[in-house]
Amino acid sequence: MTTEALTVRDLGQRARAAARVLRSLPTARKAAALHAIARELRAHEAVILAANARDVEAAQAAGLPAHMVARLRLDAASLAAIADDVEAVSGLPDPVGERTPEQTLPSGIRVRQMRVPLGVLGVIYESRPNVTVDVAALALMSGNAVILRGGKETVNSNAALENAIRSALASQDLPEDAVQVIRDPARERMLELLRLDDLVDAIIPRGGAGLHRYCVENATVPVIVGGIGVVHIYLDESFTRDPADVERAVQLIRNAKVQKPSACNALDTLLIHAGALSALPAIARALITGGVTLRADPPALAALQAAGVEAQPATDADYGTEFLALTASVRTVGGLEEALDFIAAHGNHTDVILTRDPAQAERFVQDVDSAAVMVNASPRFNDGGQLGLGAEVAISTQKLHARGPMGLRELTTTKWVVVGDGHVRA
Amino acid sequence: MTTEALTVRDLGQRARAAARVLRSLPTARKAAALHAIARELRAHEAVILAANARDVEAAQAAGLPAHMVARLRLDAASLAAIADDVEAVSGLPDPVGERTPEQTLPSGIRVRQMRVPLGVLGVIYESRPNVTVDVAALALMSGNAVILRGGKETVNSNAALENAIRSALASQDLPEDAVQVIRDPARERMLELLRLDDLVDAIIPRGGAGLHRYCVENATVPVIVGGIGVVHIYLDESFTRDPADVERAVQLIRNAKVQKPSACNALDTLLIHAGALSALPAIARALITGGVTLRADPPALAALQAAGVEAQPATDADYGTEFLALTASVRTVGGLEEALDFIAAHGNHTDVILTRDPAQAERFVQDVDSAAVMVNASPRFNDGGQLGLGAEVAISTQKLHARGPMGLRELTTTKWVVVGDGHVRA
Repeated sequence: MTTEALTVRDLGQRARAAARVLRSLPTARKAAALHAIARELRAHEAVILAANARDVEAAQAAGLPAHMVARLRLDAASLAAIADDVEAVSGLPDPVGERTPEQTLPSGIRVRQMRVPLGVLGVIYESRPNVTVDVAALALMSGNAVILRGGKETVNSNAALENAIRSALASQDLPEDAVQVIRDPARERMLELLRLDDLVDAIIPRGGAGLHRYCVENATVPVIVGGIGVVHIYLDESFTRDPADVERAVQLIRNAKVQKPSACNALDTLLIHAGALSALPAIARALITGGVTLRADPPALAALQAAGVEAQPATDADYGTEFLALTASVRTVGGLEEALDFIAAHGNHTDVILTRDPAQAERFVQDVDSAAVMVNASPRFNDGGQLGLGAEVAISTQKLHARGPMGLRELTTTKWVVVGDGHVRA
Repeated sequence: MTTEALTVRDLGQRARAAARVLRSLPTARKAAALHAIARELRAHEAVILAANARDVEAAQAAGLPAHMVARLRLDAASLAAIADDVEAVSGLPDPVGERTPEQTLPSGIRVRQMRVPLGVLGVIYESRPNVTVDVAALALMSGNAVILRGGKETVNSNAALENAIRSALASQDLPEDAVQVIRDPARERMLELLRLDDLVDAIIPRGGAGLHRYCVENATVPVIVGGIGVVHIYLDESFTRDPADVERAVQLIRNAKVQKPSACNALDTLLIHAGALSALPAIARALITGGVTLRADPPALAALQAAGVEAQPATDADYGTEFLALTASVRTVGGLEEALDFIAAHGNHTDVILTRDPAQAERFVQDVDSAAVMVNASPRFNDGGQLGLGAEVAISTQKLHARGPMGLRELTTTKWVVVGDGHVRA
């Protein structure tokens, strides 16, 4: 049956019923479901690509920018890669059922905590059909039902993907309502999902700052805010004494900014020790070769101009700003403490120190209050795959529940289990 | 300096600055701060009790119900007990600084997660001056700054308590702004706190369902909802075969309902196996002796009437209802699965099975999705002290972040720490 005629509340109720089945499934059945999904995606290839072609055509007719059309487009190779990713998720360790050691307390009761799925997830994202499948796979493998609300440009693709996923679930005698797509792209439907707090356990937005803000402002369901934030690298003078270190700094900062400028873990602001400014021209040249525009404060600008390297003067608006593009700001600081004050005012996502002084590194790790704090490593490592989680559903930059990349474990919660023999509280 | 002339945003900014100091404090300094607070509370006894007397007088003049005046009133003994509790918190294990084992990943980076304070907490509660001190102690011991917003009936008491706490902090060279009370009781100030999401990391409401709903509806800061929910006990036939078990059931159900009927972990609905109805009159008599009014469905009512025990007929509104008073509902079920379906529809807080069948117990623990699931134990054990946490700031009934009693550990989060040697992402 399709979900087209159902209200969002109907979807929520069906998801909750499905979640009750999912939460007790053994790992092997969840893994089998993911393999079935991969098979169905391959089997439905023609239908999915035809639906996607309709979305691409409509997007082009509507004048969607080329990079957004590119994100939206599927072909046989990308669909096959999506199916492979689903199979990879099936092999990840299952956190559900983990138990803390049982303790017998002075009252005589035996207590432990047991890891269980969150229940029903609402995931809101942009026009990326691969996310539909990724999120469905991660939700199922962690024992959760999921309601998906993708961008309006992907309605046909998502409907085709949902059909493939649901027929896979049915083939495994699992509730099809474990994965449901909100097919009506109207914003009111999204708002209904955000306010379904008696049925949905968490909202995970994936997208830009505007989407996150909309969710935070409007949701009564708890929201996990993520992926928004400014990334700093502080380059200390101690990391520029050895020419080999300067070269490391050049490569690392280039990697941080140029590898994927649209990523949330890409560099925004380079904080440079005044005593390290001699290394700046080499760093700037590597960035500029990668297409980066630099906006520098007066001391940094002077150092660049003296070396004949082009940069723009920075304004206040260039600090504390997430660029998500080939732009970076540079700020000169007198030392570590000034860098830490700057990061305390502007950071929360990923912050890096490049230093050869272990005491500085320790102070940086202790003081910086961000989702990921790094010493002599590229901020691009703040990613579920890179940090060993196997996969990620989002990168949380808030502090409650999960911080940093969210894998299967971050899609679970715990419950207390208490066993007595007629024990009463004194 | 007092905080009277400051806006809520000012308090937030000061709290954030204080949090930066608190997050790196060694355990011993936090414990010393708590001892200093206990000393200052004792030293300020006369001032605090005089301020409290003004609140009590105003509350009585305003016609506040006697039980609310009682909650509000402090005397020398209760203030001394509050000071003792602060000292007890100073001895709890400090979760801050705990680290997961470091892993070296295939890329060569070394990664671990480190436990850190949440940062700035906003706690909103009713007219209980003891909460002002309890929460301040738990926040400080877990390295957090806290902004407190108590009930309007306690403004004088809270100002006096705040003064004592802040002078203790100053005496220890710690930032006084670690603990701040919103002195203006206007609801607009609470709303400002709920929307201070750039400065406050979590809102913890303590109070009735109305307060929680107000926070969920209005906050942009993440809210931890807690303490709201229906408590069920399912009495299986297997637990009524042996007269000693019937007596255990009687004592346990009486404990669950009568010990503290206003508590969130008090029994609301007894689900009774049809084959266990013969035990109901004894249970009902014990409850009625404790002052409880019973509302029973037809089979249960018939069993009670046949035994000459008084009860009222239940209506639909008596199920899924948190009574917080000396009222309980009784519902007859055909067996475990019917009980589980009922709990799936109405439960989320604490649910208990009384059974002698281990397979039933296992099924109940697996299927029931509540903050605490219990076998043959009183639901009154769902409490931070009873579950071994030492103290609690609230009982969470949501799934994100913390579920069940929240102690020091639940007031912390983690950050990722990555160490490389110039590593870049491939």
